[in-house]
Amino acid sequence: MITAEVSVVPIGVGTSESRAVKKFIEGLKKSGLKVFPGPMCTAIETERVEELFDAIDEAHNDLFEEGFQRIITTIKIDDRRDKKSTIKHKLEAIA
Amino acid sequence: MITAEVSVVPIGVGTSESRAVKKFIEGLKKSGLKVFPGPMCTAIETERVEELFDAIDEAHNDLFEEGFQRIITTIKIDDRRDKKSTIKHKLEAIA
Amino acid sequence: MITAEVSVVPIGVGTSESRAVKKFIEGLKKSGLKVFPGPMCTAIETERVEELFDAIDEAHNDLFEEGFQRIITTIKIDDRRDKKSTIKHKLEAIA
Amino acid sequence: MITAEVSVVPIGVGTSESRAVKKFIEGLKKSGLKVFPGPMCTAIETERVEELFDAIDEAHNDLFEEGFQRIITTIKIDDRRDKKSTIKHKLEAIA
Repeated sequence: MITAEVSVVPIGVGTSESRAVKKFIEGLKKSGLKVFPGPMCTAIETERVEELFDAIDEAHNDLFEEGFQRIITTIKIDDRRDKKSTIKHKLEAIA
Repeated sequence: MITAEVSVVPIGVGTSESRAVKKFIEGLKKSGLKVFPGPMCTAIETERVEELFDAIDEAHNDLFEEGFQRIITTIKIDDRRDKKSTIKHKLEAIA
Repeated sequence: MITAEVSVVPIGVGTSESRAVKKFIEGLKKSGLKVFPGPMCTAIETERVEELFDAIDEAHNDLFEEGFQRIITTIKIDDRRDKKSTIKHKLEAIA
Repeated sequence: MITAEVSVVPIGVGTSESRAVKKFIEGLKKSGLKVFPGPMCTAIETERVEELFDAIDEAHNDLFEEGFQRIITTIKIDDRRDKKSTIKHKLEAIA
């Protein structure tokens, strides 16, 4: 079970990044995976790392089609095989 | 204006990390800064990077006092001086 | 052109992580991509994000076959389409 | 014992970031800590997290004095209290 977070920073388009971030989140949602946007990053939940990478790959490439020239994409993957670990579990654990 | 995210991973205490994460968030809150826990990281908002580092320093050191032996702490700081940028603004930008 | 960095932290196997890190780097090298291990992370250079994800996917999954139960994998991708940007260029830029 | 990595991305100054990265590394070196620049990040070794934060604080603030308006600074801290862990040890472990 995978819980992950991902964020993007577009370089070279002024100090505003919100258009890129919004477009990126839309791209992630197209994957059909569970996507939870937050203020600093977007959390994603999935069963397999390949599904996560496919979703990010598509969202990341969408930004270049929009005309961005340079993107820094950061990903943190928590892949746990010994027990089911969801975003809901993580939120409950810190409540 | 600073919006930041921070997360901790305790090493060497089995596959569960929730006790460390919860303790760490409690430590951050003691700073009095705006703290927004999320599933994969905790967002923090502050005016000055020194305040952020003081808060993380204290929360990080609290974990060693609890008996943890090794902690990986990850911090991303978005420091913007050209305009006010808060966590509320970031959430509105992606809504 | 992509320059990336990747690192792994195994959870639940004591405070030593070097066996996992070494195995992970071996896994990355199997991809045939340019791989530059460093003290805190491994840098990778490639043309396409899909190649990067395939390499990480394989190295990441290798760790579970070795018996690890939980892995935190962190990836930072710098994807630049306006000019060629290699690890060599990056090292020269800071020299 | 702390081994850490830090990197900066300047936002809003075109697609080139090398001037900021170079200035940031110079700022870190002023601290007197052991600083190891790499292609994707700079590794730092120190005894105490406060020393690390002081060094980053100064290097980070230097960039705003140079006229940058927005900086994303990313830090990963590996703080280990059960045994001495240096950058040299980490390099040997993956050799």
